[in-house]
Amino acid sequence: MNIHRVVRDLVTTSRVPPLQSKSLRVVEDDGGDLEVALDPVGAKPGDFVITMRTSAARHATGDPTITTDLTIGGIIDHWSEERWRA
Amino acid sequence: MNIHRVVRDLVTTSRVPPLQSKSLRVVEDDGGDLEVALDPVGAKPGDFVITMRTSAARHATGDPTITTDLTIGGIIDHWSEERWRA
Amino acid sequence: MNIHRVVRDLVTTSRVPPLQSKSLRVVEDDGGDLEVALDPVGAKPGDFVITMRTSAARHATGDPTITTDLTIGGIIDHWSEERWRA
Amino acid sequence: MNIHRVVRDLVTTSRVPPLQSKSLRVVEDDGGDLEVALDPVGAKPGDFVITMRTSAARHATGDPTITTDLTIGGIIDHWSEERWRA
Amino acid sequence: MNIHRVVRDLVTTSRVPPLQSKSLRVVEDDGGDLEVALDPVGAKPGDFVITMRTSAARHATGDPTITTDLTIGGIIDHWSEERWRA
Repeated sequence: MNIHRVVRDLVTTSRVPPLQSKSLRVVEDDGGDLEVALDPVGAKPGDFVITMRTSAARHATGDPTITTDLTIGGIIDHWSEERWRA
Repeated sequence: MNIHRVVRDLVTTSRVPPLQSKSLRVVEDDGGDLEVALDPVGAKPGDFVITMRTSAARHATGDPTITTDLTIGGIIDHWSEERWRA
Repeated sequence: MNIHRVVRDLVTTSRVPPLQSKSLRVVEDDGGDLEVALDPVGAKPGDFVITMRTSAARHATGDPTITTDLTIGGIIDHWSEERWRA
Repeated sequence: MNIHRVVRDLVTTSRVPPLQSKSLRVVEDDGGDLEVALDPVGAKPGDFVITMRTSAARHATGDPTITTDLTIGGIIDHWSEERWRA
Repeated sequence: MNIHRVVRDLVTTSRVPPLQSKSLRVVEDDGGDLEVALDPVGAKPGDFVITMRTSAARHATGDPTITTDLTIGGIIDHWSEERWRA
């Protein structure tokens, strides 16, 4: 899993049906690169989260027909920007 | 999911059967790197879109026998080039 | 999908059974990095092709028991080295 | 598989159900980049381990419904920091 | 598939059950980065090999319950260090 920080919500139109009404968040990694994650746990901007990729991302939603390749799997306790590098 | 901008359509010959008659778009990321995505939502050049990889890309088409590893999943509202870096 | 250029054929020995007698091509990306792709469409050296990764690579062969993680999915029309960067 | 060194345990809240009560470790690669791995073998900080990604990560837990994309698969004997580069 | 050179064998303890008694090799790519591959073909140090990732890696072993994400699929004939760059 990767460690990401939630940046903001994402609003999209013309979504494919499996993503309808799902919460999407823009997340950044320690280099500032942005990706979009499906959020089943209710993370807020600024939260540090763990994210899953590939088929685990679909299963983590509780419904593997949901077509995400990046899903938030939990909010990390006691993490800060300084810990992003070993 | 990744954030891509649609660049242009892509025309191919000698396609494998599962891709016959599907719409393919050349998309670029924030570094200008190009990839090819299947487009089930009708995005136009210049649109910012979210894209899915791996098995989610196949399921996002509505037909998991379609052999894509990158599929457009929605058009992003209110995004611009300046937002591509956090 | 990625855009690759076919460089040459690849000859291997001691292959695992699912790859026996399949055509393999060395392909390069726009940075000159080399990978090996299974070719079900008959591409020739110099052709620009689209390639699929992950489970889509297996399905694109027409037989998902074939153990490839990179498969040529079509030959691109009207592409040139200048178009490899947006 | 990749070679990682275990850095520390990871505590998270609001986990998705498939990860409840699983041991998670922060691991680093030879460049110092951090990821989070599920640990079914009981590795300790400082151990060098092999890790699996993608669907193999789920299967390596012994229960493919566990939604991890990085799982520790074994502890490496006789490895040291000097061997991280060929 | 990727092109790797076999560096040495890898000895591990506390392995997860699906990897018990399988041959693991440390392999390097053309940049010297190291990974670990399961070897069902009997490659030797110095051999240039093709490797498969993702679900193809599991299927290439002949038993998809084996939890590898990188498997050697064949030994390349007539390859040398000079050919690693196009």
